[in-house]
Amino acid sequence: MRIAIDAMGGDNAPDEIIAGVLESIELLGENDELILVGPQDVIEPQLPPLKSREGAISVVDAPEVIGMDEPPVESFRRKRKSSIAVMAKMAKLNQADAVISAGNTGACVAAFQMRMRNLSGVNRPGIAVVFPTFEGPVAICDVGANIACKPINLYQYGVMAKMYLKHLLGIENPRVGLMSIGQEDAKGNEVVKKARELIKSDPNMNFVGNIEGRDIFKGVCDVAVCDGFVGNVILKLTEGLVNGLFKAIKHELLTEKLRLAMKFKPVITRIYRKYDYNEYGGAPLLGINGTALICHGSSRSRTIKNAILASKRFYTEKINEKIVEYLSQTSIRTNDE
Amino acid sequence: MRIAIDAMGGDNAPDEIIAGVLESIELLGENDELILVGPQDVIEPQLPPLKSREGAISVVDAPEVIGMDEPPVESFRRKRKSSIAVMAKMAKLNQADAVISAGNTGACVAAFQMRMRNLSGVNRPGIAVVFPTFEGPVAICDVGANIACKPINLYQYGVMAKMYLKHLLGIENPRVGLMSIGQEDAKGNEVVKKARELIKSDPNMNFVGNIEGRDIFKGVCDVAVCDGFVGNVILKLTEGLVNGLFKAIKHELLTEKLRLAMKFKPVITRIYRKYDYNEYGGAPLLGINGTALICHGSSRSRTIKNAILASKRFYTEKINEKIVEYLSQTSIRTNDE
Repeated sequence: MRIAIDAMGGDNAPDEIIAGVLESIELLGENDELILVGPQDVIEPQLPPLKSREGAISVVDAPEVIGMDEPPVESFRRKRKSSIAVMAKMAKLNQADAVISAGNTGACVAAFQMRMRNLSGVNRPGIAVVFPTFEGPVAICDVGANIACKPINLYQYGVMAKMYLKHLLGIENPRVGLMSIGQEDAKGNEVVKKARELIKSDPNMNFVGNIEGRDIFKGVCDVAVCDGFVGNVILKLTEGLVNGLFKAIKHELLTEKLRLAMKFKPVITRIYRKYDYNEYGGAPLLGINGTALICHGSSRSRTIKNAILASKRFYTEKINEKIVEYLSQTSIRTNDE
Repeated sequence: MRIAIDAMGGDNAPDEIIAGVLESIELLGENDELILVGPQDVIEPQLPPLKSREGAISVVDAPEVIGMDEPPVESFRRKRKSSIAVMAKMAKLNQADAVISAGNTGACVAAFQMRMRNLSGVNRPGIAVVFPTFEGPVAICDVGANIACKPINLYQYGVMAKMYLKHLLGIENPRVGLMSIGQEDAKGNEVVKKARELIKSDPNMNFVGNIEGRDIFKGVCDVAVCDGFVGNVILKLTEGLVNGLFKAIKHELLTEKLRLAMKFKPVITRIYRKYDYNEYGGAPLLGINGTALICHGSSRSRTIKNAILASKRFYTEKINEKIVEYLSQTSIRTNDE
């Protein structure tokens, strides 16, 4: 399997990306190949000598870089030699079986979607992030690929995220919840209400009904379906709140007793590690015809390593084929897209 | 000032509501009167003898109760003798200067909006909740009154929430942020982009631009404007995440050392208290022609006491008059509602 990795993606590129690639190579098979995509003159000097690599790691030159804050579609169109654009083209031309980037999310979505196209039966792709919660992992889909969702998109996010959880994390019959503002049927905006009807009409969906924000951490569902605007707010709010709360705890501990603070530090570190979404190694862009993982901008080598392993599992488990098969067997369609 | 309180609202009614009323009476002035609204035969026996109350606390009979999970509009229409319906009518007939409920939020919004009507110049009311964060309080508006926002609604939420913060918490020139999925101008859905233009066109608005979920806890704004769907998810997600995280910390501490857990307990208690949104005593329904506070369903006596004090401040600071004056001086209108 050939996995292309954006060497210039994220706040810690290229050092942490290259480190992640080197860490993961030992864990892959003989037939696996990692392709670092980025400016060759920057990357090559950081790799071990060619002969020791034995063809397991190669470099594809992409001299341009799309910044984290550049406008996604425009930058992808303008910078044809950027790592993201080159990777998308490699996937299209079947020169890579998976693509991974911790770079500009919007540019990744635009590039991958435009080049790789959607899976048969899928109207719009969505990004699924797995949240590690106290009650177990919960996948949230979409977290930012599609901020103007139609009901059929939300239904398909439920299908794709549950197939992903089932085959990637081994959760047998994932419970799917629909993010709304109350549990009753009548709650939610028009799109949510229509999506609810679509999801309910699928007899193979283990649908738990509407969920509320607090339910993500209560173990009531394995998949939370929402539009990309709401999902993006959820993702970033969670990040900000966790950081803010630990800051508050640290502050309280330090103002009181330094010794107590020191004792508490390993506990916090352990919690951080246990509930760290980097553990799941990036979020798949579900619904495109290929394997694409998008990682957090602050990804460290561990995230990249985990993303590489997750992409292999995604690919070998044939999750895309299973999604296509599932959708082809339902009669749930709409004419609104 | 006459403040009507829903004796039957919330999970801990009527005991905690009555306790909150009794706690607050000492803190009010000679001319203040608290009116408990609910089934007289339930409430009256729980109050001190009449002569010791000296007219400060009275009871208005409302024999029906709207449950927390009942459909809002229908239940308000059907149960004319419910505490929420009776309070709304009292406000309309000028028999109460403020109304407070920890009951069914949807029913409160429907009842107060229908009976009390909107302030002059306001298109739709919104609920503002103050989040206590490590960097200071942040008001989020709307958190559930209006889930199909138009740009003008978002603009007015910015205006109303900033006036509320300024006059209730004394924040001189509140910084207003617009909840979106990226800081760049081009980010967000169509409603958000249009709202951004409206807010930017107001020279008296201290507008910091788009904010993301994580920014709420970073001290970049005092007001976060969003539609009621997103705001409701934010509110409930925060609640669920904080509880989940403390559960995880407790679990980690207990599996290790009981003594360490015991030492850490007062720290957690202090943090809970410091960052407890009950401190702000309920959320105002901004934009209606009156003073209405909606409290969390799990409110304890302290929340009710704080809500009573906040309603007095809201009323005496003439926040509604200031909102009307502000809006009458801007030329920001749209024809879309």
